[in-house]
Amino acid sequence: MSNFTPTERTRVRRKPERGSYDRELIYSVLDEAFVCHIAFIADGMPVVVPTNYVRVGDKLFLHGSMASRLMKTLASGAPFCLSVTLLDGIVCAPSATGHSVNYRSVVVMGKAVPIEGEAAKLAAMRDFVEYVIRGRWSTVRPPTEQELKGTMVVSVPLVEASAKVRTGFAVNDDEDYATPTWTGVIPMKWSSQAPVPDPRGNSSIAPPPNIQHYSRPQ
Amino acid sequence: MSNFTPTERTRVRRKPERGSYDRELIYSVLDEAFVCHIAFIADGMPVVVPTNYVRVGDKLFLHGSMASRLMKTLASGAPFCLSVTLLDGIVCAPSATGHSVNYRSVVVMGKAVPIEGEAAKLAAMRDFVEYVIRGRWSTVRPPTEQELKGTMVVSVPLVEASAKVRTGFAVNDDEDYATPTWTGVIPMKWSSQAPVPDPRGNSSIAPPPNIQHYSRPQ
Repeated sequence: MSNFTPTERTRVRRKPERGSYDRELIYSVLDEAFVCHIAFIADGMPVVVPTNYVRVGDKLFLHGSMASRLMKTLASGAPFCLSVTLLDGIVCAPSATGHSVNYRSVVVMGKAVPIEGEAAKLAAMRDFVEYVIRGRWSTVRPPTEQELKGTMVVSVPLVEASAKVRTGFAVNDDEDYATPTWTGVIPMKWSSQAPVPDPRGNSSIAPPPNIQHYSRPQ
Repeated sequence: MSNFTPTERTRVRRKPERGSYDRELIYSVLDEAFVCHIAFIADGMPVVVPTNYVRVGDKLFLHGSMASRLMKTLASGAPFCLSVTLLDGIVCAPSATGHSVNYRSVVVMGKAVPIEGEAAKLAAMRDFVEYVIRGRWSTVRPPTEQELKGTMVVSVPLVEASAKVRTGFAVNDDEDYATPTWTGVIPMKWSSQAPVPDPRGNSSIAPPPNIQHYSRPQ
């Protein structure tokens, strides 16, 4: 896989040593998360909205209601900026300003293209369900024609993207380590808990392993 | 505490039944997280950047390097939009399109005001450290004059803010529940793991309870 080429918009400016254009790294961050924040301009003002996405090969799909302002903006071809952030830990330093967070974040700049046609939308909906819970699609009622009509799906080619990553401990000077305080990292993790059955559901069906032991690719 | 008044920019448009302007709810979401995504306009294009914040009373503080584009943009008084999202669960529905996520998100629209003066900056730095790890400030080396000079802190009055919350199970029609699949919610939680000591640190100092059993206010 060839890496991304930094552009004026995706080049990491602050702390460039944390920047990466490595396609494998960028895709791994995208695949571990599935919530992004998308910034766009509405009536001349910046707006940011959290939403779900799915990565399929070298593109992202985003979906939403036909009535959604975000989806209408994306479908119009307006430029947007998408960010995914995984918080990995809290860095405890000997000095106040040495404190930091470990994270992996990705930014994608792009323009979206609406997905037209029932078959293509259906395939994207399958991708959405499978991206969030692998093996789920074959067990659920597929979308009706009307559900597909009411859903907008857009495709975002992954062309301009970069990652920014901080790992490890504090970077204080040696003399700061004489401060009598604990130093290190508190790892943070986003994880699933025991599934809670829907009271309207069939209580004789136990949660399958993909739900009982839900995890994201890491 | 009086609630927020919805404005043209903060009124929840899509699924307005999920919208809230309740100050207590909005503050609880802000306090549980400490990473936000800030959208602003740079060279006519939307940009979104993840960063840390601290809430103190009816305002947020944001901080960063004097050289940061985000901080320079905020300090200039440019309008921005800030979002905080807590993902609480994955909603497994009987139908593909019935799947959803449970979340609590907050959006803040505003303009920032730079914090000037060493004493005010020092107080804000204390708030930052204490917001992330309560009880930490008194154990670390305080910022030097030079560190304070190199840090920009801005204050954001919490005037325009709203929350959007989804809780509970799928909302499919009864007939969909005949689909032979498990339905319910996979709760998701962002939590701390066992602290990892810094090899440069003093190994005779054990992690104190605020680090050993790190948690956010909930």
